[in-house]
Amino acid sequence: KNNSSVIYGNRGMTLEQAINESNNYYLAVKRAVIHKKPIPIQIVDVSYPKRSAAVIKEAYFKKASTTDYNGIYKGKYIDFEAKETKNKTSFPLSNFHSHQIEHMKACRDLGGICFTIVRFSSTDELFILPFNLLLKYWNEKDFARKSIPKKEIEKVGVKLKNSISPPIQYLDGIDLLYNL
Amino acid sequence: KNNSSVIYGNRGMTLEQAINESNNYYLAVKRAVIHKKPIPIQIVDVSYPKRSAAVIKEAYFKKASTTDYNGIYKGKYIDFEAKETKNKTSFPLSNFHSHQIEHMKACRDLGGICFTIVRFSSTDELFILPFNLLLKYWNEKDFARKSIPKKEIEKVGVKLKNSISPPIQYLDGIDLLYNL
Ligand SMILES: [Mg+2]
Ligand SMILES: [Mg+2]
Repeated sequence: KNNSSVIYGNRGMTLEQAINESNNYYLAVKRAVIHKKPIPIQIVDVSYPKRSAAVIKEAYFKKASTTDYNGIYKGKYIDFEAKETKNKTSFPLSNFHSHQIEHMKACRDLGGICFTIVRFSSTDELFILPFNLLLKYWNEKDFARKSIPKKEIEKVGVKLKNSISPPIQYLDGIDLLYNL
Repeated sequence: KNNSSVIYGNRGMTLEQAINESNNYYLAVKRAVIHKKPIPIQIVDVSYPKRSAAVIKEAYFKKASTTDYNGIYKGKYIDFEAKETKNKTSFPLSNFHSHQIEHMKACRDLGGICFTIVRFSSTDELFILPFNLLLKYWNEKDFARKSIPKKEIEKVGVKLKNSISPPIQYLDGIDLLYNL
């Protein structure tokens, strides 16, 4: 679940780095403004040494109440998560917290475009998993299966090609999926 | 410039707390999904004690590359800063960094609604300062004045009333200003 330790493709980048680099590219060409949110932190102790920068001496990681990425594309509010799995045939719903689902649902209900960039690491395949498909399986998870079949993601979602610049052309997938 | 030390109105809240509480209210009534972004931090040292949470032992504050708040309202991407000044007749442009202006400009150019919630603390008055007015003065600041006259903010912006719930009804001001 921690993207930062997993090497993405054969380019020495993590999934998060590849998305960040794609966002920098999209920003530079003025196609979209999308940023990763900083990690939420609870600061307990800060020291202010003379003549130098404040130092945080004690802090803790807080659970994120929203998703990793948001921004604007073609006038639309965009909101998404990035996740990867070693699983070969399905994407486990345990990758999500209920507050992330609630957040994406609230954004979708107001007209936002919400999705997850899913990486199957065993085959180095990337997909856009639209929020509606995720929500369908999420709502059924207590009395049915606890994962989304990869076949279903292939059918309803969009497969993303690796490229050079940007490393992940996910906005092309969004155009296709949401008719933008 | 640090909102957290300034008491907002007579309710014992800082401007930031009042906006956060307003955002919680708007979220609860499903009117908008708008959040404050976490403070960006550069983590240098983390310790992982056995049987307890990871502790950040050394970290530094990074300069934010975007604005404080963003989200979705009426299908629109919303992006804003909150600032206050003790100045009585104008709002100093030194409250902004150039990357915040660049960020808001990029978002506006893609169809986003960008503004600043400005508080004049000496009179406890709140205004929505639309980005276009800010940009006009920003672009002229090297050969003209380095602040926006309060009179101009009163004329072009929208004055916000204090209320109980939410403490700052800034979305009503946005409706008015942007015809939503
Ligand atoms: Mg993530
Ligand atoms: Mg601020």
